[in-house]
Amino acid sequence: MRAVLLAAGEGRRLRPYFNRPKPLARLLGLTLIERNILSLRECGIKDFIIITGCYSTELKDYLGNGEKFGVSLNYLHNPDWEKGNGMSAYTFRKDYHKHEKFVLLMSDHVFELDLLKNFIKEAENIKQDELLLAADSQLEKVYDIDECTKVKFEGNYAVKLGKRLNDYNAVDCGLFIGTGALLDALSRSIERGAYALTDAVNLMAELGKVKLHFVKNNWVDVDDYHSYKHAEKILLKSLIPAKDGFISRVFNRRFSIRITRLLASTSVTPNQMTLLSFLITAVAAVSFAMAKPLLGGLLAQLASVLDGVDGEISRLKFLKSSFGEVFDSILDRYGDYLIVAGMVYSWYHATGDSMALLVGAAALTGMPMSMVFKEKFRNALGKPFIPEIHDGIMRYFPANRDGRLFIIMLGGILNLLPATLILLAIGTHLQTFIRLYNLRKAA
Amino acid sequence: MRAVLLAAGEGRRLRPYFNRPKPLARLLGLTLIERNILSLRECGIKDFIIITGCYSTELKDYLGNGEKFGVSLNYLHNPDWEKGNGMSAYTFRKDYHKHEKFVLLMSDHVFELDLLKNFIKEAENIKQDELLLAADSQLEKVYDIDECTKVKFEGNYAVKLGKRLNDYNAVDCGLFIGTGALLDALSRSIERGAYALTDAVNLMAELGKVKLHFVKNNWVDVDDYHSYKHAEKILLKSLIPAKDGFISRVFNRRFSIRITRLLASTSVTPNQMTLLSFLITAVAAVSFAMAKPLLGGLLAQLASVLDGVDGEISRLKFLKSSFGEVFDSILDRYGDYLIVAGMVYSWYHATGDSMALLVGAAALTGMPMSMVFKEKFRNALGKPFIPEIHDGIMRYFPANRDGRLFIIMLGGILNLLPATLILLAIGTHLQTFIRLYNLRKAA
Repeated sequence: MRAVLLAAGEGRRLRPYFNRPKPLARLLGLTLIERNILSLRECGIKDFIIITGCYSTELKDYLGNGEKFGVSLNYLHNPDWEKGNGMSAYTFRKDYHKHEKFVLLMSDHVFELDLLKNFIKEAENIKQDELLLAADSQLEKVYDIDECTKVKFEGNYAVKLGKRLNDYNAVDCGLFIGTGALLDALSRSIERGAYALTDAVNLMAELGKVKLHFVKNNWVDVDDYHSYKHAEKILLKSLIPAKDGFISRVFNRRFSIRITRLLASTSVTPNQMTLLSFLITAVAAVSFAMAKPLLGGLLAQLASVLDGVDGEISRLKFLKSSFGEVFDSILDRYGDYLIVAGMVYSWYHATGDSMALLVGAAALTGMPMSMVFKEKFRNALGKPFIPEIHDGIMRYFPANRDGRLFIIMLGGILNLLPATLILLAIGTHLQTFIRLYNLRKAA
Repeated sequence: MRAVLLAAGEGRRLRPYFNRPKPLARLLGLTLIERNILSLRECGIKDFIIITGCYSTELKDYLGNGEKFGVSLNYLHNPDWEKGNGMSAYTFRKDYHKHEKFVLLMSDHVFELDLLKNFIKEAENIKQDELLLAADSQLEKVYDIDECTKVKFEGNYAVKLGKRLNDYNAVDCGLFIGTGALLDALSRSIERGAYALTDAVNLMAELGKVKLHFVKNNWVDVDDYHSYKHAEKILLKSLIPAKDGFISRVFNRRFSIRITRLLASTSVTPNQMTLLSFLITAVAAVSFAMAKPLLGGLLAQLASVLDGVDGEISRLKFLKSSFGEVFDSILDRYGDYLIVAGMVYSWYHATGDSMALLVGAAALTGMPMSMVFKEKFRNALGKPFIPEIHDGIMRYFPANRDGRLFIIMLGGILNLLPATLILLAIGTHLQTFIRLYNLRKAA
């Protein structure tokens, strides 16, 4: 399936803030249109038509042929862009392939990736004479509803659309799956002198041919500075994975998201953040070894916060890589090893107690077992390990690194290294045994 | 797709050895027909029709409705089984669904699982008026070719079949994908008084409708005691995974396969073998700790051999389980830990050298990293890690546990524990770093 991006307008209201065409306004390190291209690439779309108008040259110069995004970009120019966005959409008729379905969207709208993914899956369920429209019926959550195109619907089909509609129960998200029928409707409405895309959609709605897909995720039409800031907010929030550990969710992410926001516009890569987080863990380990547990604990927690940033940046800027994933995971193990070694050294050096060595060995061997178990589980069962479901009674012991590093921070602050090591030693192995036991029971 | 198993014959030649119907002769812990049912279950087939004749009651009593195999078994009786196997195959017409394709096989043939898997994938490529026949053109490898039905083929289609054919270039493996056309051909040939399945196949071959699938794996028609022993041999050989480590391939499997052969007819489970292997590792660890490195080393190697048996039994008897896979993998890690701990204790106890502790910590933390890396690699890249391809120069350092335990055995025999531990400590971590480096380079 190809995607058609409407990028012909002038975007006057946002211009003073960026001094460049609105689709090229930067938001968290990517221009608006770039983010839509990369998001759609994640949905499997590799072929794009960009409809230009006001800033044709600037867009072409910046985006090129798409090679740098790993997609193919082609341009169609709409000299009549000032008349309305229906004219722009209609420009696509020149390149339309018979019976083709295509994604049509506003290049200056910001969508959560999951919204696009879910929407595009629905493409197969519309008929050749229908249009699929992404609609948001959670009206209380819609940003700046006054600016939105309202939709009155019955069942799953739109009845009427319009910016000034009084009786409505959803709004139009500016995202469509079109067929030849949309181009026909555009032709009819333009003939009548109605140049907005909504005019053509209304013609189809009258025939009961505008099917709605109700979105669950966030989106925003970036119109002005306020909506721009709102888009930033929803994108940052969407970076938090559903399966975050407890400490990460209630504590780490508050900070990591802010750091990611600051770093988004820089060229800092996820792998650089992975390395930085590891190096801070190493300094934490040295601090523990030098009998500075408070500093060690705080640095461990700092490393834990930064350990979230790499993933956030990679999701935010579409920089995910297999190497990055493996690299992060291996360095996490080494970070754990170093911190435990530092703590053991401190304990043993201070007391000469050989118990420190035993407990240390137990903690060193226990720390990687959580990951060993989870990865093996996923490979053997073909589904991810979910602590809340699979951990039974052990779900109160940290199932993830965020929790273990938090315990280490507390141990450092309270200067309770032996107790912390004993807790980690017993907890990690006990967790592994109980996980095995639960798996056996479930089999 | 359903499978039709021909189990009507008398099997006179094998009877003296087993004192039960041939399909119920036990081979490596499973009856011949059971193995075919379970193999086909692995290929996704859940619905079976068993054509009985001579030993109808015995078969029904033993196999039941299939519940114990997780499949559905239904029986059709052929009172005329003595006339020939074409009569038995033709019995299936009573239950045939229009346009259905079905697998048809001799219940007393033994096939390697991969042979069946590859064959069944081809089912979709035959037309409704064709028959797909598994044929073996590697004539020098065929067991007891005198007893086989020969096939003369041109291109991918059979021209003529027969036991006494002089001009042939393949043999018939007794495995088919049939359609309604086969039942029609059976009807025609039975009308003419020709009651063998081959007679009907020949009718179709004359019309150019017998497509051939050339098998690459081993199979055998179990007719007499010699072919029975040959079947045992090919099944045992098929248990060795393609991606075995070097030590495992050239050494461990020679022994583990023999142990598996002995245990096949017992009720010993794969998980029991996993546990036994772990317990022997624990005894090896204690031996090292008690300054008996020779015993420790030999026991470690014994555990390594037994570590192969669990997988072999589970593949041989279709006892694979997700729990077993995770259990094996977690106990392997604990086995490694214990052995290294025993060796470190021995070194440290004898010398008081704190270097033993450092090296020990490095070896303890390095041992699980090979698996951590491989599992994470597989999850992140969606393909298995293959040392020969992905390990670069480190492929000469053991990539698997078999190699590491072999090093430990050598260290024990030569009483070189410190050197062994240093080698393991450096080798395992270096391997991890080089794997990361190679992954980065490949990205």
